[in-house]
Amino acid sequence: MPTDPTTLLTVLDLIGVFVFGLSGGTLAVRRRLDIFGVMVLSLAAALAGGVFRDLLIGAVPPASLHDDRYLLAALAAGLAAFFLHPQINRLGKPVMVLDAAGLGLFAVAGCGKALAYGLTPLPAALLGVLTACGGGVMRDLLVAEVPRVLREEIYAMAALLGTLVVIAGHALGLPPVPVAVAGALAVFALRVVSVLRGWSAPRAPGS
Amino acid sequence: MPTDPTTLLTVLDLIGVFVFGLSGGTLAVRRRLDIFGVMVLSLAAALAGGVFRDLLIGAVPPASLHDDRYLLAALAAGLAAFFLHPQINRLGKPVMVLDAAGLGLFAVAGCGKALAYGLTPLPAALLGVLTACGGGVMRDLLVAEVPRVLREEIYAMAALLGTLVVIAGHALGLPPVPVAVAGALAVFALRVVSVLRGWSAPRAPGS
Amino acid sequence: MPTDPTTLLTVLDLIGVFVFGLSGGTLAVRRRLDIFGVMVLSLAAALAGGVFRDLLIGAVPPASLHDDRYLLAALAAGLAAFFLHPQINRLGKPVMVLDAAGLGLFAVAGCGKALAYGLTPLPAALLGVLTACGGGVMRDLLVAEVPRVLREEIYAMAALLGTLVVIAGHALGLPPVPVAVAGALAVFALRVVSVLRGWSAPRAPGS
Repeated sequence: MPTDPTTLLTVLDLIGVFVFGLSGGTLAVRRRLDIFGVMVLSLAAALAGGVFRDLLIGAVPPASLHDDRYLLAALAAGLAAFFLHPQINRLGKPVMVLDAAGLGLFAVAGCGKALAYGLTPLPAALLGVLTACGGGVMRDLLVAEVPRVLREEIYAMAALLGTLVVIAGHALGLPPVPVAVAGALAVFALRVVSVLRGWSAPRAPGS
Repeated sequence: MPTDPTTLLTVLDLIGVFVFGLSGGTLAVRRRLDIFGVMVLSLAAALAGGVFRDLLIGAVPPASLHDDRYLLAALAAGLAAFFLHPQINRLGKPVMVLDAAGLGLFAVAGCGKALAYGLTPLPAALLGVLTACGGGVMRDLLVAEVPRVLREEIYAMAALLGTLVVIAGHALGLPPVPVAVAGALAVFALRVVSVLRGWSAPRAPGS
Repeated sequence: MPTDPTTLLTVLDLIGVFVFGLSGGTLAVRRRLDIFGVMVLSLAAALAGGVFRDLLIGAVPPASLHDDRYLLAALAAGLAAFFLHPQINRLGKPVMVLDAAGLGLFAVAGCGKALAYGLTPLPAALLGVLTACGGGVMRDLLVAEVPRVLREEIYAMAALLGTLVVIAGHALGLPPVPVAVAGALAVFALRVVSVLRGWSAPRAPGS
């Protein structure tokens, strides 16, 4: 059990990568892709959001190409999806809860990194949302489907809430770690409650 | 009414961003995306072309993450599309005319920026076309459709014409501002005439 | 007939670009895209893999924007596809063989460049596969189809084999040129044999 906060954060981050990777791998299995397609969708779902953020802020090579643990976590998720997809699909609720945790961590970390690279609040908030949701968008595009995050549910909205917490804390000069924890918890809570209650983001009037 | 040419150019550029954003937002409403999907398609249609260009020439963070007015113009277009889509859809011709103006500005500005970063004429022309058309490609891919610009109409061709004007002017050592104006007007004229006349780019013989 | 190895490598590389471009251009003709769509799919299929690799390792502008011959080879492939698609489609086997050669060259060159930029073996192998397969993925996404390389056949697997040869040679301190040749030949052989025998990559059990 890690006690040092950096180690704890890395462990949480790797869990987020793994769970996002599962969402890619299991979708690939459902769409009858081969083993390579399963691994690619796991990598894309787990890492594309952070890769897009890093390309946009000029942090190249992206973080996930610097530290093999991120690639290995995503590839492990792909293998798990390939061999254990019936079991994973049956685990609906725990996977959703872990996914919500990953969403919170990625949104907060993405926004924080953008601020650290000198971006102003509006683009930093967008990059936080991109970090959290970009992998899911890429995952769905690779199977030629309209990304789920653009169509339904409170998912990106929850990520946006977390980035607003980070930006408010930054503007008020509050210490970053507790602010990040509060932001990630806000994302997590909004996401989980919205799934349990069946909330959706609104559609255009008359659409 | 701005009199200084830089201000005028910025105003025109922001109008281009807004109108391109409308094309993304109204498509998102037609495809029944939620409010988040509408905002993402507005941002993508308005800004992705310039973002791709800036990533490829190494100008990171991209211009649209430096100046909040670009993000705000794209987000305003998304909100307008969300709440006013029936009215916007009825405005077919004025929107097409503004879109043609945006096409001209983006093609000329994209090509000029690529030349300023030291690229040779052929890649600079391609980056001008990418700046002008990349947002529309991204917009259509996000709703899992074959990009319209690849299928029909004189759209990319018009953008290409503008980049050729810029490159010819550059090669002849002509002053850049009048050349850019001429290039943008050439794009605008070819695009508007081609819509009014119903011209299309050719398909492969026997396809 | 070039005798100097660098010239020979460039000639092989340009042949690879041309053949990959043909795969894009002929798909575009089959999907009834216009001339602009045909050129875009040729460029994407030929060059997107290398462009993605260069963006990820920070080698901007990408190599194909530095040397007009790459753009010209891809555009020539587009024109050939536009005017000669019935003849090209009839040439099934020679095109497959050249494509397999391109696959080997791109995988090996992509992995080698990633190692030269200081990446560790795991991300370097992935970037080699991305270089070889990214263009085909982009080509298929642009016509809103699930990329073929994610669905069937031994294609990415063959590219991966080549990157493993390069990485093993690098780890053992062997001279890079013969290692690269061996890697490219391994890709080529596995790809050609797998097509002739009708081998496919496995799907998930029970999918």
